[in-house]
Amino acid sequence: MRAWCFGAGLAVLGAASAVQAAEPVDLDMVSRIRDEAFHHSQAAALLKELTETVGPRLTNSPAYDHASRWAGDKLGGWGLANVHDEVYDPAFGRGWEFRSARVEMLSPRQLPIRALPKAWTPGTDGPVEGEVVKVELAKQEDLDAQKGKLRGKIVLLDDARAFEPADKPDFRRYDEEAIGELRTFPVPEDRDAGATDKRLAEFRKRQAFGKALNGFLVEEGALATLSISSRDNGILRVMGGGSRKAGESAGVPALTVSAEHYNQLVRAVEGKQDVRLRIDVDARFTSDDNLPATNTYAELPGSGKANELVVIGAHMDSWHTGTGASDNGAGVVVMMEAMRILKAVGAKPKRTIRLALWGGEEQGLNGSSGYVSKYLAAYPEPTDPEQKALPSAFQRGTGPLQRKASYDRFSTYFNFDNGTGRIRGIYAQENHAVVPIFKAWLEPFHDLGATVVTTRNTGSTDHIPFDRVGLPGFQFVQDPADYFSHVHHTDLDTYDHVVPEDLKQAAAIIASFAYNAAMREERLPRKPFRERDEQ
Amino acid sequence: MRAWCFGAGLAVLGAASAVQAAEPVDLDMVSRIRDEAFHHSQAAALLKELTETVGPRLTNSPAYDHASRWAGDKLGGWGLANVHDEVYDPAFGRGWEFRSARVEMLSPRQLPIRALPKAWTPGTDGPVEGEVVKVELAKQEDLDAQKGKLRGKIVLLDDARAFEPADKPDFRRYDEEAIGELRTFPVPEDRDAGATDKRLAEFRKRQAFGKALNGFLVEEGALATLSISSRDNGILRVMGGGSRKAGESAGVPALTVSAEHYNQLVRAVEGKQDVRLRIDVDARFTSDDNLPATNTYAELPGSGKANELVVIGAHMDSWHTGTGASDNGAGVVVMMEAMRILKAVGAKPKRTIRLALWGGEEQGLNGSSGYVSKYLAAYPEPTDPEQKALPSAFQRGTGPLQRKASYDRFSTYFNFDNGTGRIRGIYAQENHAVVPIFKAWLEPFHDLGATVVTTRNTGSTDHIPFDRVGLPGFQFVQDPADYFSHVHHTDLDTYDHVVPEDLKQAAAIIASFAYNAAMREERLPRKPFRERDEQ
Repeated sequence: MRAWCFGAGLAVLGAASAVQAAEPVDLDMVSRIRDEAFHHSQAAALLKELTETVGPRLTNSPAYDHASRWAGDKLGGWGLANVHDEVYDPAFGRGWEFRSARVEMLSPRQLPIRALPKAWTPGTDGPVEGEVVKVELAKQEDLDAQKGKLRGKIVLLDDARAFEPADKPDFRRYDEEAIGELRTFPVPEDRDAGATDKRLAEFRKRQAFGKALNGFLVEEGALATLSISSRDNGILRVMGGGSRKAGESAGVPALTVSAEHYNQLVRAVEGKQDVRLRIDVDARFTSDDNLPATNTYAELPGSGKANELVVIGAHMDSWHTGTGASDNGAGVVVMMEAMRILKAVGAKPKRTIRLALWGGEEQGLNGSSGYVSKYLAAYPEPTDPEQKALPSAFQRGTGPLQRKASYDRFSTYFNFDNGTGRIRGIYAQENHAVVPIFKAWLEPFHDLGATVVTTRNTGSTDHIPFDRVGLPGFQFVQDPADYFSHVHHTDLDTYDHVVPEDLKQAAAIIASFAYNAAMREERLPRKPFRERDEQ
Repeated sequence: MRAWCFGAGLAVLGAASAVQAAEPVDLDMVSRIRDEAFHHSQAAALLKELTETVGPRLTNSPAYDHASRWAGDKLGGWGLANVHDEVYDPAFGRGWEFRSARVEMLSPRQLPIRALPKAWTPGTDGPVEGEVVKVELAKQEDLDAQKGKLRGKIVLLDDARAFEPADKPDFRRYDEEAIGELRTFPVPEDRDAGATDKRLAEFRKRQAFGKALNGFLVEEGALATLSISSRDNGILRVMGGGSRKAGESAGVPALTVSAEHYNQLVRAVEGKQDVRLRIDVDARFTSDDNLPATNTYAELPGSGKANELVVIGAHMDSWHTGTGASDNGAGVVVMMEAMRILKAVGAKPKRTIRLALWGGEEQGLNGSSGYVSKYLAAYPEPTDPEQKALPSAFQRGTGPLQRKASYDRFSTYFNFDNGTGRIRGIYAQENHAVVPIFKAWLEPFHDLGATVVTTRNTGSTDHIPFDRVGLPGFQFVQDPADYFSHVHHTDLDTYDHVVPEDLKQAAAIIASFAYNAAMREERLPRKPFRERDEQ
């Protein structure tokens, strides 16, 4: 528990503050950036509009397009250059949106059930009623065993799960012990040679069975499926289901139910009671065809090294469950605000600073991957259709990386996508040459709690496609806040869970990092690159 | 934060364990009780039936009657004596139940709103739609100002509230530091002479305005009112509204909305957006007239001192919001289980041990107060109608306490009503003569974490009516668990938030306390008594 005893370790902070800057930093510009960021911030106002006027932004939903227009208008209005949307995938998938969902237990007693539909699953077209059954549907043999038994039934897909009381506060700031931990690098264990093949095989199996299950449930005439939320305390954590692809079966209505209510359903069914529900889901696909998916860009043009690029970004898309405030409205407005600040303080960068608001992050970093493939570097498209069907991370043997002309002119990418959490430092991704540079850039922000340059890697967001092709791409270290305890992909991912002061702090640091990267003599150094097939 | 650093203070536990018992304790009976409680427990099974087959148990609702029958059948089936329901209030109020509630924002964008109706408020009789307005309705002048403006409107009654991140774990066990704190007694500050009159004046004002507001909203044709939940993180904390009394206006449909959603509504309205909701509440009064309200009793008859009483109890009624598992299903099944254990181990108490399952606790300790007035002691009924209208705690000047014959033959009352939390000790309510007795009774349970006899008072539940008339009445010290952080009067008050091992531990300790009280030579000593008018 000592991790949660504060007051300790201030000495460590002192030590960090004592780091000497080998790298020149324009402290006058830091002052101007901080003044604009702290005393004229628009971050919270932007987030309120994005989350509560536009709302959640599922990729290719009408609200996503609304968000792109909204962002474009703001960025253009601030006088940024080259503001436009650009297609990264001409056939990403169908549009989808949901209006409401009502689930009621009718028997053995009346109980309103807390539930939300999975994205890209059909609505019920009005209220439907049916008996609840719990059957194993994990493999083809299970489907064969259930053939003819599920017509008109509502199917529980998961087991009940015991409540796990939280032993830590829901909302956390890193203390100095946790920050100190980040100053260490855990030497990697040897990777199981077959690990990737194993993950690939599992992925293929899951993918294939998912399609089979969707088709089976439709064919058998099941009314709906229910799954348990992966969070306790009534929190609904809901992502995608069905299929977004035209021509593929979207299955039957599929909802995620709060753990407290789901467990009651399982206990009643296993107690041999007659359990009946009424379900009314108003959800719909907004297109029959696969629609193109877009990113949104804007620039502060460079002068002198205008064709060299510094890119900052965050993902515009969200799940439909909350309003996408922490994931990743916070990142979107922090990055927009960083561009606004640089424009407002009259920054004249040597390199061009480009803002990218990505789509399709939640479906596999699609917007940022599309950007990297088109403009920086890509592996040859596989010809083998089986390989084609795989996410690029799984594709193998298509040949060496093909670098575009701008590959060498690219400097760096900075990303912000771990919720509201204030910046405490940055992940150097094992690029040791950037460590002294980042230490110098962070020093003017030690008084805001941003002190650590960790050599560790972090993943799972839009800096990874840059990192994968050997280009500098970085995500900041952020306080955990209640990101993973409460809001990540849940109905609590709303405006109230974002801390305006955190947004101001992040915007100031990112504006400064982007400016420093755009002004320094050299582009940021790169780390050793391993071809995909050698990994 | 040191309070959350465990491992400390085991020495204190050791010290506590070293307390010498002046009071004889039948350790053979303790062994038999523990064996039955731990190895043949029915507590969790009882709670599952009570919360998930019977469901929540609002006083005078059909489910409350179902619960009384359920408990009576169990208690009779175990061979307990004198099992029956008894009216404590011939005209408590009307029955009420609700089936479902659906609230959707239609404008400025689509959003399903998390909300539940307040008890004893009307349903909507199908879906209704209206504009949302936020107006001050706190005093008569506000009503005058709004006259003619609220027809067809949905009224926000509260301001938005800033999210407050939790800085402690939601689920807590007392550590030794917290237990040590309980071993101290804070000397009371002088009470402001006018404090009671002030509270009384406020109560009268609130009561009068509440009635005026209900009538006003009906007269003006408002569609519904919305209030903010007093918990964050989507938790719905919902008690009563409207009126349960026949002949009084129940007002318009009144719902409590999750803080995250309520704040969005306020921001949209204050942002001058056109906010429209659709509300569909299926709730109904199940009687036109005030129905009598009952407690449920059962006995293990004494032999030798059969007309002397040891009473153990908990309240059967709950709010309608969750399933009343922690508040107070846990207490009900712990007390039922204690009786079952005593019967199962063949206990032959000298004094009669009576189980009381109270109704109306949530509306003001009504069931237990009714019992005390009828059988033990009461102040004369006020004749002044104004006094009549007040809760008895506020009534004054009706003369000295009238003691019934059984007042002197009464020994003690034990209560359990603070959620699932395991017993860590007992509140002696400033009765110092019972301290050495309780210390001796607790010693065989030190190994279960029950170590402290605090001289402090605790209130707010069914031991208070006994305490108020100078009779021994006690509530146990229980681990906080997530009672006040999450489940108290909320939609999370469900079976999954109760820890079965805690129920076993409590049942063993309470069975032993009841047996000891029924067997000891003397009735439990009493503390100095102050007449109500002297307080």
